[in-house]
Amino acid sequence: MAAEKIIQYIKDEQMEPGDRLPTEYELAKFLEVGRGTVREAIRSLVSRNILEVRQGAGTFVSHKNGIPEDPLGLAFEKDRQNLALDMMAVRLMLEPEIAALAASNATDLQIKALREQCDKVESLILHDQPYRKEDAKFHQILGECSGNRVIRKLVPVITSSVELNIGVTRDKFKMNTVALHRSITNSVAHRDSVGAKYNMIMHLNVIRSGIIDEMDEKKRELSQEI
Amino acid sequence: MAAEKIIQYIKDEQMEPGDRLPTEYELAKFLEVGRGTVREAIRSLVSRNILEVRQGAGTFVSHKNGIPEDPLGLAFEKDRQNLALDMMAVRLMLEPEIAALAASNATDLQIKALREQCDKVESLILHDQPYRKEDAKFHQILGECSGNRVIRKLVPVITSSVELNIGVTRDKFKMNTVALHRSITNSVAHRDSVGAKYNMIMHLNVIRSGIIDEMDEKKRELSQEI
Repeated sequence: MAAEKIIQYIKDEQMEPGDRLPTEYELAKFLEVGRGTVREAIRSLVSRNILEVRQGAGTFVSHKNGIPEDPLGLAFEKDRQNLALDMMAVRLMLEPEIAALAASNATDLQIKALREQCDKVESLILHDQPYRKEDAKFHQILGECSGNRVIRKLVPVITSSVELNIGVTRDKFKMNTVALHRSITNSVAHRDSVGAKYNMIMHLNVIRSGIIDEMDEKKRELSQEI
Repeated sequence: MAAEKIIQYIKDEQMEPGDRLPTEYELAKFLEVGRGTVREAIRSLVSRNILEVRQGAGTFVSHKNGIPEDPLGLAFEKDRQNLALDMMAVRLMLEPEIAALAASNATDLQIKALREQCDKVESLILHDQPYRKEDAKFHQILGECSGNRVIRKLVPVITSSVELNIGVTRDKFKMNTVALHRSITNSVAHRDSVGAKYNMIMHLNVIRSGIIDEMDEKKRELSQEI
């Protein structure tokens, strides 16, 4: 398949995100296929977030690193609140262990980045600004601190899916997020893997409990309507 | 975006995998966009494994459920053996908890399916047949037994990535796989979530230790060459 050949080419040439690919014409010649086939292959790699086309500038290796939109295919799932709860169960399996690994493995530079992101989220929350995206990024930086490459890829999958599936208001937990992001960051900086793990459990469990409370509330409202 | 509108259409119509979509012409009319746009959108949904086109028969909701190829974008990662180790760390975070949930939540029908899959893998191994794919399916059925919808989507992501990234021979662990798949299955059938969890830990840790042994062996070989 031409798409797989292009992936092989990117690997062989050790290309990085942002690097420009040869032109369609050159690729066709190099891969010994027609230009239509190359065009089709590029299109499919763009929708897999492996390449990006910038109008007039050419085709580039994507910064999205091949992580697809809706990577878990959750777009079709109904009952978003139970889905949010299922997601929290998965996050509770992964993120406390990730936090513990981060405390063991983070480089000084990564700890600095984590602190800065912690400050950023805190400042957004205290100034009543939208903070979800930066919150997700905090968890992503923590994943990078773990030094595990699968985790580094998996955390954005989880956090992007979180954005997809949460209709639940998190604003109640704002101050909890401020306090516990700070505790997690300090635990990582102190190389305290036990602290990092249990602070993460507290953080996620407060959110989980909040989702359950909201579901109960909705049930109560529904039963009053009847 | 037309692709998102088509997803919305599939959801609204509660279409299931295998159901046929309206024709390009009908979709263009319904979504109030050009046919070229519809064609492009369908192409992008095909490469996201949400739709599939069967020549001459039409466009259908895909059985792949929107789970993309190489969902973690690991195709580019070098150093496959350390990647395999990173993957085992993630599996050790998830799968023992999944096994515990399966013991709590599996329906009788799911336990039957798990037993059958356990038999199948065992028979393939004992007859020296290729068994990787059916092994992955065992872990996937266990994920379904958990009753958690995010896990159901996540396990194939992990197992398909396993196939991608393992150059490591697993054949040493064959008999371990036979014994521990059986123990896990029995624990789930007995509703023994502690047993299910720790049998899974044993299963995965034997494989993990084997990967480390192989890496050590390679290092030794390399140092002898020098």
